[in-house]
Amino acid sequence: MASSILSDCSSSATSRLLPLRRALLAPPCRFRPATVAAPPRRPLAIAAPQLPLLPRARGMASASAAAAASSTDSDACAKIIDGKLVAKQIREEIAVEIAKMKDAIGVVPGLAVILVGSRKDSQTYVRNKKKACEAVGIKSYEVNLPEDSSEDEVLKHITTFNSDPSVHGILVQLPLPHHMNDENILNAVSIEKDVDGFHPLNIGRLAMQGRDPFFVPCTPKGCMELLHRYGVEIKGKRAVVIGRSNIVGMPAALLLQKANATVSIVHSNTKKPEEITRQADIVITAVGVANLVRGSWIKPGAAIIDVGINPVDDPESPRGYRLVGDVCYEEASKIAGLITPVPGGVGPMTIAMLLSNTLESAKRIHKFK
Amino acid sequence: MASSILSDCSSSATSRLLPLRRALLAPPCRFRPATVAAPPRRPLAIAAPQLPLLPRARGMASASAAAAASSTDSDACAKIIDGKLVAKQIREEIAVEIAKMKDAIGVVPGLAVILVGSRKDSQTYVRNKKKACEAVGIKSYEVNLPEDSSEDEVLKHITTFNSDPSVHGILVQLPLPHHMNDENILNAVSIEKDVDGFHPLNIGRLAMQGRDPFFVPCTPKGCMELLHRYGVEIKGKRAVVIGRSNIVGMPAALLLQKANATVSIVHSNTKKPEEITRQADIVITAVGVANLVRGSWIKPGAAIIDVGINPVDDPESPRGYRLVGDVCYEEASKIAGLITPVPGGVGPMTIAMLLSNTLESAKRIHKFK
Repeated sequence: MASSILSDCSSSATSRLLPLRRALLAPPCRFRPATVAAPPRRPLAIAAPQLPLLPRARGMASASAAAAASSTDSDACAKIIDGKLVAKQIREEIAVEIAKMKDAIGVVPGLAVILVGSRKDSQTYVRNKKKACEAVGIKSYEVNLPEDSSEDEVLKHITTFNSDPSVHGILVQLPLPHHMNDENILNAVSIEKDVDGFHPLNIGRLAMQGRDPFFVPCTPKGCMELLHRYGVEIKGKRAVVIGRSNIVGMPAALLLQKANATVSIVHSNTKKPEEITRQADIVITAVGVANLVRGSWIKPGAAIIDVGINPVDDPESPRGYRLVGDVCYEEASKIAGLITPVPGGVGPMTIAMLLSNTLESAKRIHKFK
Repeated sequence: MASSILSDCSSSATSRLLPLRRALLAPPCRFRPATVAAPPRRPLAIAAPQLPLLPRARGMASASAAAAASSTDSDACAKIIDGKLVAKQIREEIAVEIAKMKDAIGVVPGLAVILVGSRKDSQTYVRNKKKACEAVGIKSYEVNLPEDSSEDEVLKHITTFNSDPSVHGILVQLPLPHHMNDENILNAVSIEKDVDGFHPLNIGRLAMQGRDPFFVPCTPKGCMELLHRYGVEIKGKRAVVIGRSNIVGMPAALLLQKANATVSIVHSNTKKPEEITRQADIVITAVGVANLVRGSWIKPGAAIIDVGINPVDDPESPRGYRLVGDVCYEEASKIAGLITPVPGGVGPMTIAMLLSNTLESAKRIHKFK
């Protein structure tokens, strides 16, 4: 598998972006799953200021913390951020909170999902969200509309959910059919129930000092939560976000900047992105280009959060492809201090953060602390 | 005067920030006002993509353009961006546009200003705004309320202006008295008339791809306009914004990023700000620290936009002080390609952009192209 990924890292697509010769690549480090670093358990305090937790990234922590946290596998290998485990911890914490709220005020959070059309991937996402809700005690509401529904029909359902007091979060599954205007539909969701956090008012409040958004978009919130739970210090650090999408890159940059990092956003018009990235103590990539970020882009000891999920051909896989991130994992994990794998890194965090946002909304609406 | 500024640049306040020895300072370059570079006149096209205009910044333009634009004073000196002249051009262009609109549809733009209390500086600002409005043909509406007015009284006036069809822009003069909640009051201004552009919804739309704000905040819009009018290419360039305030730094960074620069935001928690700043082709400073940015922070040929207006002691001045920017002008102008002076750089642009926003609003409301 490692050599197969190495092939990806030097594929024609990425070699155009960075002409690194295969001969220069160091041999891949071999991870044993048992050495994956688990974050210490802590009560749910999403988006709280980071605590001095172990393990920390190499080069970003005290010597003793780094020693305590060093990998048992190989000194050359980064510590793996276990998104699956963190997401599981968070779901458990959410379940406890929900049980408490139900006991105290008899309310359970409610999440409404609107699905238009019958895309297989969207159906799977919605099913997974529903399952995750049930597992923690969130009540699911679902509307399935045919592909040829009108915008008005979708808007009608949004209006109903907006005024339903048992619904605390509303989510419109994207993509919507082409004949619909995404902006009109997303803007119709009440700002108090926009658990996706995509509303421009939320993004504006995220950008501004002294303001807080109602909701932080789920995937960037998941990235920050991983950094917090692995004790990565953010204040005063250099951070680079690669990609500037409305749903990941830009809000991730705004979150890092709100946490007092010095942030640079790298995008398709950036010249010498590797030079800027190499200055960063923290890198978040969300660009959708398999293996774009090579080992040579990484500052030794940096924390790398890879949001990309890109299919690459893999004849050895039963499906004929496999998923890799935006970061050439084998190279980067030799240099970085902490790194998220793909899959199993940021991916599992997104639904966990959706549950967290729904709980947060219910608590806010019912003034439950 | 030059030596007096040099003293400022090595004052105790700034020497703490950057311990540059006075002995290392190059002798100041001496500007002759007659050599200040004038931008070519062009029709009002605020925030339009930059045109290949002369003069360009050294190191950012073609050799011929740079040669054509080179200072006649000294090769070592940056070209001065004449904000006063640009602002005058813009006001003239606005006056022409307003006359056209009045002729075509019988409408003139209207700007309402609400002033609470009797602060001398606020009264001066409001008087200047009124004069500037009259000069271009914008109708002024003014409400002066006593210091001890209630929040409700201010809100009542905002509501009246929100629904008045002859008012296209509403501006609440800041600072408000302490007993008022700025956020409540500013959020009450209709988003269609928020010519200050401070509403979080505007900032969110500024941050997002595929969205445009109703209004761009005046000072950062003025910074961008100066860059455009002096032909500074932005796409693909490295830009550093020093300061991250809601009204200048953050929106300036978002505007540069929307124009496809690679942007880093430097702030009080940034370590080694001089290293990051030195990488930038474009620097916008809005931090309020006199002479913070030394010559050694500047990349040769960079374009420097200095928003800071800081009083420093000057016994030779009749007022006992004089105004300087965030940039140590004498040092920076030796290194930069283009630079705004203080005063006379960004300052005059802010009111010009307020007039531009008010005109834009009237055109949008009346669908006048």
